[in-house]
Amino acid sequence: MQERRWGATVVVVFATLAWTAMGAKLSRCTALPRDGGDGVGCLSWRVAVETGNLRGWRTVPRRCVRYVERYMVGGEYQRELEAVVEQIYRYMEGVVVSGDDRDAWVLDVDDTCLSNLRYYQGKRFGGEPFDPTGFRRWAERRACPAIPPMLRLVRDLVKKGFKVFLLTGRDSESLGRTTAENLHTQGFVGYERLVMRGAEYRGKSAAVFKTEARRQLVREGYRIWGNVGDQWTDLLGDHPGDRTFKLPNPMYFVP
Amino acid sequence: MQERRWGATVVVVFATLAWTAMGAKLSRCTALPRDGGDGVGCLSWRVAVETGNLRGWRTVPRRCVRYVERYMVGGEYQRELEAVVEQIYRYMEGVVVSGDDRDAWVLDVDDTCLSNLRYYQGKRFGGEPFDPTGFRRWAERRACPAIPPMLRLVRDLVKKGFKVFLLTGRDSESLGRTTAENLHTQGFVGYERLVMRGAEYRGKSAAVFKTEARRQLVREGYRIWGNVGDQWTDLLGDHPGDRTFKLPNPMYFVP
Repeated sequence: MQERRWGATVVVVFATLAWTAMGAKLSRCTALPRDGGDGVGCLSWRVAVETGNLRGWRTVPRRCVRYVERYMVGGEYQRELEAVVEQIYRYMEGVVVSGDDRDAWVLDVDDTCLSNLRYYQGKRFGGEPFDPTGFRRWAERRACPAIPPMLRLVRDLVKKGFKVFLLTGRDSESLGRTTAENLHTQGFVGYERLVMRGAEYRGKSAAVFKTEARRQLVREGYRIWGNVGDQWTDLLGDHPGDRTFKLPNPMYFVP
Repeated sequence: MQERRWGATVVVVFATLAWTAMGAKLSRCTALPRDGGDGVGCLSWRVAVETGNLRGWRTVPRRCVRYVERYMVGGEYQRELEAVVEQIYRYMEGVVVSGDDRDAWVLDVDDTCLSNLRYYQGKRFGGEPFDPTGFRRWAERRACPAIPPMLRLVRDLVKKGFKVFLLTGRDSESLGRTTAENLHTQGFVGYERLVMRGAEYRGKSAAVFKTEARRQLVREGYRIWGNVGDQWTDLLGDHPGDRTFKLPNPMYFVP
């Protein structure tokens, strides 16, 4: 297996030709629209975002801004989010809750429990770079609406006996009270704990902070069954949970 | 946070109405085509598969068979796969290889290095359930073509000094020689090791087998930088690698 062959380049070229020819030969139908009509490859871009293959991006590519807008407000986002929640229910209904109060779920807050869609509408749906001051001002208004399928899920998780942990990268000191009040007003009650970013994690990756927070839960004896977030940084790292669920969000990437 | 309110149901109903109204209010454009024209929600179904939200499915839903065929052979699959490989290169080029021969990559084989598209064409692109005998017969023909962007990647990884491990759920005893020959014929040379499923992992989940195999690599002192596969069972579990990359595959799910 260690040998190298002078002809390997030829093999690559040949394989590329065969691959292209296979595509052409198998194709008995017109090509799929790549992005709903505007921009090039925006659907592929979105799938790359949703699978976590594409990371560290700062804004929606200019050619895809209209595409993302249509996705977010044309009904597709809501339908796709509802489809994920349906999968969450299927899984959740199969979990047997033990009586020891240690069966836990972890849920992110922004664009998982609470929607920032209205805010991002003013930011060209992610076409503009993240504006920390603007976002803090928006969050301080306590006006983020609940995402209804997620509100229903939280209530049903609590009803079923799970301990629900809301784990957010929002800064505890500046947005702690605001966030708790916003959640309360929107009907998020009965959850176990709101875990926010402390001063020691300022400037660190959300994945690092969230991994540590989950490690702490596991140390306390919790079994994390499900973990739901709109960012891969919610779901990656140690103790991700027995099942992770990625909610759609093509508007921004949280490092 | 622990209180329950009698009005919570009212809040859910209100939030649902607000959510629906928001969608309607924000919508200034026609809805996206949901699936390229045939079937209902097939794009959402595919995104659910690609994000790992949907697991344990046995066949492509009947309504989405034509959609998956068009995706696979209409050019979209190839473009999307190439876009993932582009992301892999961007990441790979930023990794500094140390001189100790312990910088590793892990790659799956089926529909990651070698393509089974021709085989699945005869199985209605996943519209029929997995046929172990049929698949073994196909694999024994040693006729799986390379996926060219992945062949190029393997060659470039080796050239850059990474140790490349090909990790496959194929059974070592029955398909060991066949698979090694198929890889060789297709130009996959210079990789470090082909790791196949041993008898002790027969009937176990690919995630379990692959996690153990990666644990062994880490025990040997390897640092897994990248991990590439078309199945989430390639990428989940312990020691997933510094970055994981999910290649598209809407044709089948490996448990």
